[in-house]
Amino acid sequence: MSQLHLLSPKGFRAAGVAAGIKKSGKPDVALLVADHDISAAAVFTTNQVVAAPVVVGRLHIQRGNLRAIVVNSGNANACTGKIGLRDARLMASLTASLLGCETTRVLPSSTGVIGHLLPMDKVGKGIKAAHANLGHSAEHALAFQNAISTTDAFLKQAATTLKIGKETITIAGVCKGAGMIGPRMKIADKQTSKQTGKQSSKQTGKHATMLAYVTTDALVGGAALRAMLTSAAEQSFNVSSVDDHTSTNDTLAVLASGASGVTIASDAFKKKFSAALDEVCLALAKQVVSDGEGATKVVVIRVTGAASDSDAQQIARQIGNSNLVKCAMHGNDPNWGRIVSAAGLGSARFVPEKSKLTLCGTVLYRGGSPVAFDAVKVSSDLKQKEVVVDLSCGLGKGQAVFYTCDLSKMYVTINADYTT
Amino acid sequence: MSQLHLLSPKGFRAAGVAAGIKKSGKPDVALLVADHDISAAAVFTTNQVVAAPVVVGRLHIQRGNLRAIVVNSGNANACTGKIGLRDARLMASLTASLLGCETTRVLPSSTGVIGHLLPMDKVGKGIKAAHANLGHSAEHALAFQNAISTTDAFLKQAATTLKIGKETITIAGVCKGAGMIGPRMKIADKQTSKQTGKQSSKQTGKHATMLAYVTTDALVGGAALRAMLTSAAEQSFNVSSVDDHTSTNDTLAVLASGASGVTIASDAFKKKFSAALDEVCLALAKQVVSDGEGATKVVVIRVTGAASDSDAQQIARQIGNSNLVKCAMHGNDPNWGRIVSAAGLGSARFVPEKSKLTLCGTVLYRGGSPVAFDAVKVSSDLKQKEVVVDLSCGLGKGQAVFYTCDLSKMYVTINADYTT
Repeated sequence: MSQLHLLSPKGFRAAGVAAGIKKSGKPDVALLVADHDISAAAVFTTNQVVAAPVVVGRLHIQRGNLRAIVVNSGNANACTGKIGLRDARLMASLTASLLGCETTRVLPSSTGVIGHLLPMDKVGKGIKAAHANLGHSAEHALAFQNAISTTDAFLKQAATTLKIGKETITIAGVCKGAGMIGPRMKIADKQTSKQTGKQSSKQTGKHATMLAYVTTDALVGGAALRAMLTSAAEQSFNVSSVDDHTSTNDTLAVLASGASGVTIASDAFKKKFSAALDEVCLALAKQVVSDGEGATKVVVIRVTGAASDSDAQQIARQIGNSNLVKCAMHGNDPNWGRIVSAAGLGSARFVPEKSKLTLCGTVLYRGGSPVAFDAVKVSSDLKQKEVVVDLSCGLGKGQAVFYTCDLSKMYVTINADYTT
Repeated sequence: MSQLHLLSPKGFRAAGVAAGIKKSGKPDVALLVADHDISAAAVFTTNQVVAAPVVVGRLHIQRGNLRAIVVNSGNANACTGKIGLRDARLMASLTASLLGCETTRVLPSSTGVIGHLLPMDKVGKGIKAAHANLGHSAEHALAFQNAISTTDAFLKQAATTLKIGKETITIAGVCKGAGMIGPRMKIADKQTSKQTGKQSSKQTGKHATMLAYVTTDALVGGAALRAMLTSAAEQSFNVSSVDDHTSTNDTLAVLASGASGVTIASDAFKKKFSAALDEVCLALAKQVVSDGEGATKVVVIRVTGAASDSDAQQIARQIGNSNLVKCAMHGNDPNWGRIVSAAGLGSARFVPEKSKLTLCGTVLYRGGSPVAFDAVKVSSDLKQKEVVVDLSCGLGKGQAVFYTCDLSKMYVTINADYTT
């Protein structure tokens, strides 16, 4: 498992090069290429302020197959108007011409600062250099990862294999992201695909986003792939947050090469594949949360027994997005009053008398009454890298999980202590 | 104007004493008493986790008149179950017996830590001492203010006079609050008044809430007072936030003594009185935001031209509650990408191409395109104590204002660097 990487599934090549978009000189143009046009699906940000590559990508993915993904980091190509749209299309067409495929078979992505025009001369040279460097190895996968990163403190990847009948297929994924993380991604419908994203250039500050790419060597039909990707996103990235600020560029794409010769057609196989895809996406989403700006731990909020799943999700979000709760988690403070009051502050039904709150396995509050507990022990338990807040509502069968991180002074340092 | 205080409107006395609830020995029991039963209205937190005094207060205010308000600070009497409810009722009945009125004519309030039982011996002695110290002077008003305060860095008050025909009436108010501020207050309906708030004792960490009391010497009928208070709350406290975490104890009450002999009956007088009440409540709410934990400035977010008022409010809230925006404001960073992307991240309609963003009077973004601006000047303008974010949406006539503060490392220090 541990040796698996983005290119472990057969049928893909990748590359990452430094094209000079980042002032640091670090890698900033990446290509992920399939051997031929293959089945693909993607979900994109639902922010109404949407970057040019997302506008273009939503159109290109419509027919459900792709040859390649082209990514630049260091510049989000967001709020860049018609020129930005032209540039995003140009990234796709340059890649397509090198690969000999249609432009609409290339999905462009960008991440970096908002409001700057892409230096297309550099991007173009970068795409050519990346194309010349394409390869199958772990090093090529690593080069791709490096080139899509921005403020990431570490590279994020996850992979799994599964038996489909007698055959083994592989699902692997990589992602980037640390701040402006509150993804709410959906399959593009006709409405959003028509969005033109007329915006144009000027500077703004540092900006992060969430980009994730998943490869598999299974053969999966477009409709099934879209449905499974939507489901995976709903259980991973879409229930994760660093600052709950949905970015302009968030993208999660999956490409199914079919190179294993295994087709995911039966319901049983779909179920198995879907579960594995969920697992990979969740592992990636948790890595993003764990690398959240200033974060020192992942906070997993499980809500059960709510009146509905939607109520459970709302309650979990309220807890996970409370700065008071996030600060308490940072300070290893078992301050259950903040958690319980966060649970009750919205429209989702919550009855304190029926609830039970468990923090790191210790019950703190039950039936509307506090429970005596060893504060020193719980505070010590809160020092773990992953802590679990478990709230049982006693109202029904609704349940949800939400993933967030703590809020530290470093978050403020990163986001306040510099000037555009 | 500047000499006006809570007891400037005739017909009220107040007191504040140190009863030993706070370990610091600072004042912690306060009384505000009318000369007789008078017209009153109150709005309370809509958090479903509700403190005992709010449960009791919602019942007592039902008939629209009050004799007194009794407040303790240093202990929220929240999550304190049946004993807490008994204690909240006891605070009211002790006060009532000293005043010779019905228990239901006394509104109790508490603020402080969640999950501790009130030391009722101390509270009782404090109420008696406060009763013995009641008076009309500015010093008595000040003593009341001191005794309702918790983590407040400064005392908060506002007042105004207005001509009603040939007479002058006065409206004055005080409030407290610094953290766990995201009020969503409403008049208690029959549903919420029945809520029993069965919760009980145990410790949790520091906790703040928003308590505000307004006095006037005008005579205003209960129904009109309720309507005007609701409207005032909607335009002030309910559109303000420090951390958008709705507390368990939030209360805003208004008492109309009628001691001026002036009755607010005609529509014209109601309109005038209502505007003055709005003004006082807004001045109080802005002081709470300005005293927000770790805050260095007030950020006023004006949204105009939205598809509806409700859309405008949602957009303003999204901007005002974005940690990325709040950090940028703290760092005096004209990072418009964060503001614009926050505007678009929810369900309220937002079309970047039709919008215009103005920060401290400088246009940064218009028609979907960035506007060249003097970043040094805008950054310098952002150093003011109050900064205005003005977003015009170009979609309709919907408008809203939201008041928040910046997010600093001090907020994290206050809320993470101590242990329960």
